Amino acid sequence: MRIGFLGLGRMGSGMAASLLAAKHAVIVYNRSREKATPLAERGATVAGRITEVTDADAVITMLADDDAVDSVVFGKDHLLAALPAGRTHIAMSTISVALSERLTQAHRQAKQNYVAAPVFGRPEAAAAAKLFVVAAGAPAAVSRCRPIFDALGQRTFVVGETPATANIVKLSGNFLIGAVIEGLSEAIALVRKNGVDARQYLDLLTSTLFVAPVYKTYGGLIVEGRHEDAGFGAALGLKDIRLALAAADASRVPMPLASLLRDQLLTIVAQGGEALDWSALGRLAAKNAGL
Amino acid sequence: MRIGFLGLGRMGSGMAASLLAAKHAVIVYNRSREKATPLAERGATVAGRITEVTDADAVITMLADDDAVDSVVFGKDHLLAALPAGRTHIAMSTISVALSERLTQAHRQAKQNYVAAPVFGRPEAAAAAKLFVVAAGAPAAVSRCRPIFDALGQRTFVVGETPATANIVKLSGNFLIGAVIEGLSEAIALVRKNGVDARQYLDLLTSTLFVAPVYKTYGGLIVEGRHEDAGFGAALGLKDIRLALAAADASRVPMPLASLLRDQLLTIVAQGGEALDWSALGRLAAKNAGL
Amino acid sequence: MRIGFLGLGRMGSGMAASLLAAKHAVIVYNRSREKATPLAERGATVAGRITEVTDADAVITMLADDDAVDSVVFGKDHLLAALPAGRTHIAMSTISVALSERLTQAHRQAKQNYVAAPVFGRPEAAAAAKLFVVAAGAPAAVSRCRPIFDALGQRTFVVGETPATANIVKLSGNFLIGAVIEGLSEAIALVRKNGVDARQYLDLLTSTLFVAPVYKTYGGLIVEGRHEDAGFGAALGLKDIRLALAAADASRVPMPLASLLRDQLLTIVAQGGEALDWSALGRLAAKNAGL
Amino acid sequence: MRIGFLGLGRMGSGMAASLLAAKHAVIVYNRSREKATPLAERGATVAGRITEVTDADAVITMLADDDAVDSVVFGKDHLLAALPAGRTHIAMSTISVALSERLTQAHRQAKQNYVAAPVFGRPEAAAAAKLFVVAAGAPAAVSRCRPIFDALGQRTFVVGETPATANIVKLSGNFLIGAVIEGLSEAIALVRKNGVDARQYLDLLTSTLFVAPVYKTYGGLIVEGRHEDAGFGAALGLKDIRLALAAADASRVPMPLASLLRDQLLTIVAQGGEALDWSALGRLAAKNAGL
Repeated sequence: MRIGFLGLGRMGSGMAASLLAAKHAVIVYNRSREKATPLAERGATVAGRITEVTDADAVITMLADDDAVDSVVFGKDHLLAALPAGRTHIAMSTISVALSERLTQAHRQAKQNYVAAPVFGRPEAAAAAKLFVVAAGAPAAVSRCRPIFDALGQRTFVVGETPATANIVKLSGNFLIGAVIEGLSEAIALVRKNGVDARQYLDLLTSTLFVAPVYKTYGGLIVEGRHEDAGFGAALGLKDIRLALAAADASRVPMPLASLLRDQLLTIVAQGGEALDWSALGRLAAKNAGL
Repeated sequence: MRIGFLGLGRMGSGMAASLLAAKHAVIVYNRSREKATPLAERGATVAGRITEVTDADAVITMLADDDAVDSVVFGKDHLLAALPAGRTHIAMSTISVALSERLTQAHRQAKQNYVAAPVFGRPEAAAAAKLFVVAAGAPAAVSRCRPIFDALGQRTFVVGETPATANIVKLSGNFLIGAVIEGLSEAIALVRKNGVDARQYLDLLTSTLFVAPVYKTYGGLIVEGRHEDAGFGAALGLKDIRLALAAADASRVPMPLASLLRDQLLTIVAQGGEALDWSALGRLAAKNAGL
Repeated sequence: MRIGFLGLGRMGSGMAASLLAAKHAVIVYNRSREKATPLAERGATVAGRITEVTDADAVITMLADDDAVDSVVFGKDHLLAALPAGRTHIAMSTISVALSERLTQAHRQAKQNYVAAPVFGRPEAAAAAKLFVVAAGAPAAVSRCRPIFDALGQRTFVVGETPATANIVKLSGNFLIGAVIEGLSEAIALVRKNGVDARQYLDLLTSTLFVAPVYKTYGGLIVEGRHEDAGFGAALGLKDIRLALAAADASRVPMPLASLLRDQLLTIVAQGGEALDWSALGRLAAKNAGL
Repeated sequence: MRIGFLGLGRMGSGMAASLLAAKHAVIVYNRSREKATPLAERGATVAGRITEVTDADAVITMLADDDAVDSVVFGKDHLLAALPAGRTHIAMSTISVALSERLTQAHRQAKQNYVAAPVFGRPEAAAAAKLFVVAAGAPAAVSRCRPIFDALGQRTFVVGETPATANIVKLSGNFLIGAVIEGLSEAIALVRKNGVDARQYLDLLTSTLFVAPVYKTYGGLIVEGRHEDAGFGAALGLKDIRLALAAADASRVPMPLASLLRDQLLTIVAQGGEALDWSALGRLAAKNAGL
């Protein structure tokens, strides 16, 4: 297939490379153009402006946040006007339910297809085509995107025909990761303050009840107090919890654990930890315990 | 070895059976004597009073709560007085750090050994000798208990020389399970209210990020709304979170997520759900969302 | 002065009447025109469309929420275009900090004045000209509004030159009222469940430590379980706490008590209590305690 | 009347002086005897041991915490044994509901009277006989204590015949004060970070909606960041919130705002602020906001 790709950050670069590896034709665009160079070397066409990527079967956006997607789609020189009728916009970054609903409506009016397909996985998984794709949209449109999803991930879950459904699932998943981190943060502070070796404790947890990798990954970062090299920053985590809470508010679902996560991440960011990994929740719990 | 065993509830019965299966000599005692019958058929000696179980290398207590252990050990006709010097009391039920510390001191004064060895696992795991044992105590004493732990579980973790350390680890583990349940409860309420199929959602979670069995077990109960058959009751869950918070308070560790769990479980119990499984946190989250 | 007045709800009607009583010339507009009739009888001019109220020294908006103000100011047939340069828009309803900032900028560009002047007080106080006015804006503009504020309230507080400052103060004040209600709700549930007479308890509180009328008013509603006749609805309360949290998020201030209020109010609304007074927090606390 | 008085801390010294001023005969006892000297100068008899104070119509305990009362009443050389039948123990310090229930039972068995009569007021109010007394117990016993209460406070509230009722009321009152402090702490952090003058803001609050002295007192301490001179220490506040939560737990009343207070006070204490006034909640809120 011929695929336009907008957004070559840590996730997007790996994903575009995976598409190329699967022999798709890829036209990439990024505001800072030098990020496109490694992909050009692997065969990508580099577009000089957003509207050049629309000469494609589908255009993927993998941009930082709502504002970036909003401006690319609705801003001047915009995707919405440039994309021919019948083509598909696949929004793969983590965006709000509200924006996904606006995109659904706008693309429908423009007789274009819109598929929401956020992904689970960190940059390493993106580069290795090991993402999990959560897709939602009109069945025919989703079906046509299958080869793309197959090239990007190890498995695709279609969760509904309403695109925003996929965004809800993605946001709830990030909330659950946040809950794991906060739980581990408090538990590790407790056992450390009671003289238990934190590393041995984590080994016990992850070889018995909590074998999921997310416990190993984040537990390890907390035990080592290693939060400076942000795989997923506190500010990003805060953004996603905020979006989960906004969706919960709009659909009237109280989520007190999400509120707690919001307050703790906001504390980290307010105290200057914006650039820390969101596992810095562990540092906050330790600090609050006087450790 | 010759082992005294006090407390033949759902966990204790399976554990005593595992000891017999491993060819240990077991003397059991239970307040309501009929629970001892199936074990007698497998070769256990049935004691008529608590003090008769003390003619053993070690005596295991697997009793409901602090009060039960307190009364058995310190009450009239009590273990503390009856147990010969040099023998070992292994406290395997989930008790408070404070009681474990009192036991440490009392047994030391009586020149007996005391090992705290709470377990992870539900009744099925107890019956199948698949528990995880978390042990702490004087190395020599713990070492002598090894054959017992090997007969009961699939793996033993020695977490320190201070017995109460094992209780902290056990309580923190139950807290982490509670955190999983609350997280799933809120996430499932959110996605259900947004039109996502909850069963499919759970499959997605447990085949990607959250492969640990605890997610499958409790997620399944929440999705099905099946809380009547309590594997682990809300009142017990509340008790354990209360003990975790007491230990946290004593060692000055704020645990806001544990506080949240406490308040939610207390709501369930206050509204008459004492006998429900603690996965009823899912029902509470649904009800609070108007589902 | 000649004053345009938009929004004749329970608060606005009383305020417009106070302005007439103070001999100001008042041109009123309301979507449902019949609400203007009683004011016409007292001497108000009734405008047939929004733009007719702009032939005035100042135009007051006292509308339900952000959306209403947004649509009146920025919508088609809008205040922003119709208001002559040099005139003043006084936004007196409770709006978001973000909207107040947008208004600041838009009116500045249009060479109009903008003063934020939200008020404290319930409808009775509005009708009796007993409101407290919290004003912020350019000193000269605020100064010219003085006769208006004097006609509406018993006292005016000027809190800064940045209009949004007044909105922050207003939102934080509503948050503090919400905190009083939640505190009383929990305390009253506790004492009732322990056999204390709730009415006598409230008398004790309000004649000793908590003499502020807000304790008497809301405590009385909670004790009587009288939440059907909403002086200030749960949905409005939720909206204001949401705006307080949005302002707190934007300025990076964790407010866990506000988060708690949000979750409790959201529960009330999700369970169908949208139209109840926000003192229904008391009913929720009682229900959660099994009362 | 002839009154025994145990506990000459900041509160107790003022109270004993008030009793002397009202012409009661007072026998005082304090562990560190020098605290009795000023009272001896005003006419108090100084007892050398606890049991000497029991030659009185009533004995008041005004001791630091549960442990102190427990040890004085039930310990060796104890009040329970020394107090003649028919005499009255008035427990006036803030103790747990559980201890008050134990005292009720023990004194009944010893055919003594027991009245719980905790007080509201800071040391200045104790010295000025301006306390509020909250009493509960058998009507005849309470009635006989009236002259004592009249000498100590400006008003007495009899809240029931079950002594522990008075303790519930006292604990819930301290919880409500804590709620005020936390509310103010968050609100002040919010407005400060948005450029509002905190002192002016507090004046606005306390001259409009929140005229109760508790807002002025604690708001002032927060605005000035003056927490070193503890009128009521964070550790004491934590103790009282803990007791309120214990009573709430025992009677199955979820109190999420009390849980929040517990976690915040625990953070202060864990970080070394044990000796700070509990208004240090304001410092914590400011710190968490990066101020």
